[in-house]
Amino acid sequence: MTHKIAIIGASGYTGAELIRLIATHPTFELAALVAHTKAGRAMSDVFPHLTHLDLPELVRLEKVEFKDIDLCFCALPHNTSQKVIATLPKSLRIVDLSADFRLRDAQAYEKWYQTPHTALETQKDAVYGLTEFYRDQIATARLVAGTGCNAATGQYMLRPLVQNQVIDTDEIILDMKCAVSGAGRLLKENLLHAELSEGYNAYAVGGTHRHLGEFDQEFSALAGKPVKIQFTPHLMPVNRGILATGYVKGEPQMVHETLMSAYQNEPFIFVLPFGRTPSTHHVRGSNFCHIGVTGDRIDGRAIVICAIDNLTKGSSGQALQNANIMLGQDEAAGLMMAPLFP
Amino acid sequence: MTHKIAIIGASGYTGAELIRLIATHPTFELAALVAHTKAGRAMSDVFPHLTHLDLPELVRLEKVEFKDIDLCFCALPHNTSQKVIATLPKSLRIVDLSADFRLRDAQAYEKWYQTPHTALETQKDAVYGLTEFYRDQIATARLVAGTGCNAATGQYMLRPLVQNQVIDTDEIILDMKCAVSGAGRLLKENLLHAELSEGYNAYAVGGTHRHLGEFDQEFSALAGKPVKIQFTPHLMPVNRGILATGYVKGEPQMVHETLMSAYQNEPFIFVLPFGRTPSTHHVRGSNFCHIGVTGDRIDGRAIVICAIDNLTKGSSGQALQNANIMLGQDEAAGLMMAPLFP
Amino acid sequence: MTHKIAIIGASGYTGAELIRLIATHPTFELAALVAHTKAGRAMSDVFPHLTHLDLPELVRLEKVEFKDIDLCFCALPHNTSQKVIATLPKSLRIVDLSADFRLRDAQAYEKWYQTPHTALETQKDAVYGLTEFYRDQIATARLVAGTGCNAATGQYMLRPLVQNQVIDTDEIILDMKCAVSGAGRLLKENLLHAELSEGYNAYAVGGTHRHLGEFDQEFSALAGKPVKIQFTPHLMPVNRGILATGYVKGEPQMVHETLMSAYQNEPFIFVLPFGRTPSTHHVRGSNFCHIGVTGDRIDGRAIVICAIDNLTKGSSGQALQNANIMLGQDEAAGLMMAPLFP
Amino acid sequence: MTHKIAIIGASGYTGAELIRLIATHPTFELAALVAHTKAGRAMSDVFPHLTHLDLPELVRLEKVEFKDIDLCFCALPHNTSQKVIATLPKSLRIVDLSADFRLRDAQAYEKWYQTPHTALETQKDAVYGLTEFYRDQIATARLVAGTGCNAATGQYMLRPLVQNQVIDTDEIILDMKCAVSGAGRLLKENLLHAELSEGYNAYAVGGTHRHLGEFDQEFSALAGKPVKIQFTPHLMPVNRGILATGYVKGEPQMVHETLMSAYQNEPFIFVLPFGRTPSTHHVRGSNFCHIGVTGDRIDGRAIVICAIDNLTKGSSGQALQNANIMLGQDEAAGLMMAPLFP
Repeated sequence: MTHKIAIIGASGYTGAELIRLIATHPTFELAALVAHTKAGRAMSDVFPHLTHLDLPELVRLEKVEFKDIDLCFCALPHNTSQKVIATLPKSLRIVDLSADFRLRDAQAYEKWYQTPHTALETQKDAVYGLTEFYRDQIATARLVAGTGCNAATGQYMLRPLVQNQVIDTDEIILDMKCAVSGAGRLLKENLLHAELSEGYNAYAVGGTHRHLGEFDQEFSALAGKPVKIQFTPHLMPVNRGILATGYVKGEPQMVHETLMSAYQNEPFIFVLPFGRTPSTHHVRGSNFCHIGVTGDRIDGRAIVICAIDNLTKGSSGQALQNANIMLGQDEAAGLMMAPLFP
Repeated sequence: MTHKIAIIGASGYTGAELIRLIATHPTFELAALVAHTKAGRAMSDVFPHLTHLDLPELVRLEKVEFKDIDLCFCALPHNTSQKVIATLPKSLRIVDLSADFRLRDAQAYEKWYQTPHTALETQKDAVYGLTEFYRDQIATARLVAGTGCNAATGQYMLRPLVQNQVIDTDEIILDMKCAVSGAGRLLKENLLHAELSEGYNAYAVGGTHRHLGEFDQEFSALAGKPVKIQFTPHLMPVNRGILATGYVKGEPQMVHETLMSAYQNEPFIFVLPFGRTPSTHHVRGSNFCHIGVTGDRIDGRAIVICAIDNLTKGSSGQALQNANIMLGQDEAAGLMMAPLFP
Repeated sequence: MTHKIAIIGASGYTGAELIRLIATHPTFELAALVAHTKAGRAMSDVFPHLTHLDLPELVRLEKVEFKDIDLCFCALPHNTSQKVIATLPKSLRIVDLSADFRLRDAQAYEKWYQTPHTALETQKDAVYGLTEFYRDQIATARLVAGTGCNAATGQYMLRPLVQNQVIDTDEIILDMKCAVSGAGRLLKENLLHAELSEGYNAYAVGGTHRHLGEFDQEFSALAGKPVKIQFTPHLMPVNRGILATGYVKGEPQMVHETLMSAYQNEPFIFVLPFGRTPSTHHVRGSNFCHIGVTGDRIDGRAIVICAIDNLTKGSSGQALQNANIMLGQDEAAGLMMAPLFP
Repeated sequence: MTHKIAIIGASGYTGAELIRLIATHPTFELAALVAHTKAGRAMSDVFPHLTHLDLPELVRLEKVEFKDIDLCFCALPHNTSQKVIATLPKSLRIVDLSADFRLRDAQAYEKWYQTPHTALETQKDAVYGLTEFYRDQIATARLVAGTGCNAATGQYMLRPLVQNQVIDTDEIILDMKCAVSGAGRLLKENLLHAELSEGYNAYAVGGTHRHLGEFDQEFSALAGKPVKIQFTPHLMPVNRGILATGYVKGEPQMVHETLMSAYQNEPFIFVLPFGRTPSTHHVRGSNFCHIGVTGDRIDGRAIVICAIDNLTKGSSGQALQNANIMLGQDEAAGLMMAPLFP
């Protein structure tokens, strides 16, 4: 049995990552690859690391026969994504990797993304795509909204703690270290090698990063009251990987046990033994998530650290995991490759 | 059907790379992982990127029941490897990743490795492991000697040219750029991040690199006369990848056609369209080899460039490819993962 | 006028950095360079980037005529340093870059360094070397104990805030990102390029890093009560630079003004306009310190970020600045070179 | 005594590097900094690593009073540079860092740069700026044309060999490894960190790189006959540094002696002992050039390797060296800082 798959936005990093993963998938077949300015070019030209694959040429959206497609990944920038998805057949099952359908509240969308939402009807169909916590809804959803890579990282380490009330939700600090591929294939001065390598800095300091919209929505819902965390991202001179260092108030062993218990049956999430610290080196290129817990020297405080690959578990791997659920496949199909180290 | 596999030297980079690859192999099962100083430790402790795998603990060599093993990879340093292999059962099929059995001439071995060969009987059983050129012998060999990573790169780009006499064999220059993982997990000052990153330099200049032993052996055999190339390796601040730039005298289009023709049916070797240049970015973490040919502005001279991942096609991937052949499996089993980019 | 300078421990990174800086100093002359295992070698051999300088050969300690020396830098590992300094003439003025004389309390030393202090008499002579806060005592000191690089970073951003009581001293979190040269030229597996580049992780999590001894000593003295901060360092795949992200409770504008006021006359410390964030890119290779303050979206919380070069302002530059004061020179002599960017 | 200096094109990397160097110059004062799209901004905003300097604001060209300027550096892209310089006062002394006045033959310019030269009159005034070989002419020149960074590297290692006829000029191969800052602060996809780091590739293969125009002009003039070399540049994931590996036919000891003799009195050029190989690590951020010579195992062939920092000796450092000569200053003023290592 084969599932025909389309990718809209195949010329960006998340699109290429989807192709890398699907290349080894037992039942998914890439039927259409859509791009805009790069339409008409071969994928091996746009991404020469895919030279060995027999892939369809990049085409413009209007060339795709969506009636033959079983599932469509949409890997476009936010704002563009909602406009494109609004034009797709209502029967088409979609995994969207953009930010456009993550926030259930249109006002929150407008606040964080500084532009009105123009596809509110479609928003109603959307299910939040953090797989481990929305599996049942994802299985039957028409549209799954993949989480932000930073938002996924923070939620993996904190959701069970917020839900089980083992930490003080007024005192959560997330210090995040983010790889550059999270910014996409954009031509911006601060993403140049000469500007970025050999150093690091914070950005969006003070609670201005857009992924806070997701944190606020999800943690508040879990806690049953408004939860606002502090979150500072830092841009690292590395291509893949997010490391989130969380400072929380709660009993460290309880924090560890709560996470162990929450994830004991999850295939991709590993809680390390108490006192061990994860590294982005050890999840790079994979769909795995490593979480570590350590007690601080100050009683009642714990440090929780979480590492994922932003392009895989933080984006395209998560999207494929969701697609597997939507199409009734093994959730881990195409996703069990080991991290690349060194 | 399952093949039971042992890896001796599982705590080094090539050992870890074998495990990464075999983890997705349809019929290979890791039955024994052997280490020396790290015996008794869990692989997830020595290489945390393998945490998700259910692997046997590292054990000392004497603990392994080799009668249950279908094939053994030996990923030890040269000189150690020959001593260990000499103690293994004669019936055991072995893929050796060290330099110890690559040179058929014991004097050549002593010249390049500055130590006498002590397992000359075993040497007689060895087949040189450059898969694409020794397939038939590998299929029935008891012992396959994996090539050096630099030696593999240079041979992929040059063997068809030497064999078909389309270039002047007295005037071959290979300028090679090599990633640091080729040096292994050794504690040497020049391999420290602070020493190595942000710059580059040549090493083993002037025809002193050991892989010249392999070049001399193989090219002379192909040409039917002594062939000595010039070869200068450079250490790059990168973890994976070899890029070899070859300066040859021959008609460029003929050079390109000869390579195209030689590799047209090979699953892992891609000759790019004339005038395109390969990049290590595009083979990273994979078993693929990209080769490009360009004509120089001076008539009758061509530049041939070849890119592989030193740990995969240059070492562990090649070893697995050979093991597949030895055990009658699909040669590409476990080896079709796409490169990791970015 | 010339001052004759000796460096003990000239074969490590901080020793080499001292030489780089002193090379352009108007009055300092390098009279003796001391090493242990590398004694007898030329500096241009041990550190080829110093080839252009006419430097004395590395010698063993016993070869140095200290009576001709005006000031001695001691750039040895902790524990070794106290033993060596105990053997030097009591009249010799010394700037020590190790941890051995930073902690005034011998029990604190033993707690954090896991070894008893064996030069308690010498400790009494030592002045803590954070230049901007100990200038007067440094001017007349026989022995100045350079601060830890992390300890310097954290103190520059926090001392005025603790001293002026504008933040809650029970709720200080320092999340620090540290370059690898801070670990020195040691042969350790985790410092290898292949292990370290392309990823990052925390270490010494939970309040176990030794520089906490300095934070506790200094902040408690300033506050007049015990102050314990939370501090988590992270190892970055970069050679130079410390970025400390501080989460504090206090009024952000007041935090900014306090820092502006404290450093308005300092030649090396720059407080950026409110809301700007510093980067290690912009202090690399220099003795400058950049500090930024931003208000969080949660009222009454501020994020303070500080960037220095660990080898310069965090170690050898600070040491030279102190030596200038000790010898009555312009404090900035040899230290005004601009950062290297890109 | 003070010399008033203007920099046109101060917002690019070579402009910023000029400012870094001039900041420590004893007699040069930055009187005007010119930019186009960034006019009106503070340098500390465009290049925060220059925050500590008291610099004039960026202004548009028409704002500069050139009659007060003693010397002007022009750090613009080629083609733009000739147009701007044509508008400057004829009495103004200029060091141009672009390619526009390097080639004495207008047809050669048009061939390599694919655009006609439009300032042929100005070209007549230009002196080629490879300091060590054009000192006398530079001293009195109105306009000095700084060399290309690759062209400088190749000439330092080869000029004495071509001039003294110790190598075969028909058989010169230069394999060059180039840092990314050589491409400038341009927004191009292949210069992004995510595209460039962790790998490498050749570019402009086959004799198409523009700096060949300079090689052809200079080597042919030296040899008294047409000389065409082979030259392949490679883009490295590093910010600064060029390493050129030269394969030549000639007696290695003679090659070494010729270079030793040529540069024995040069302050910036160091020929290493025979058999040693230079590294870009050891010239980074400095105006020094290291050259090494090794004999190949094949008699009569030598490998010559040269390392410089492309932004310093390859561009802005060279420009300052020339300006020193033009204004009768110590040639090394502002240029004796040691390389930054690690």
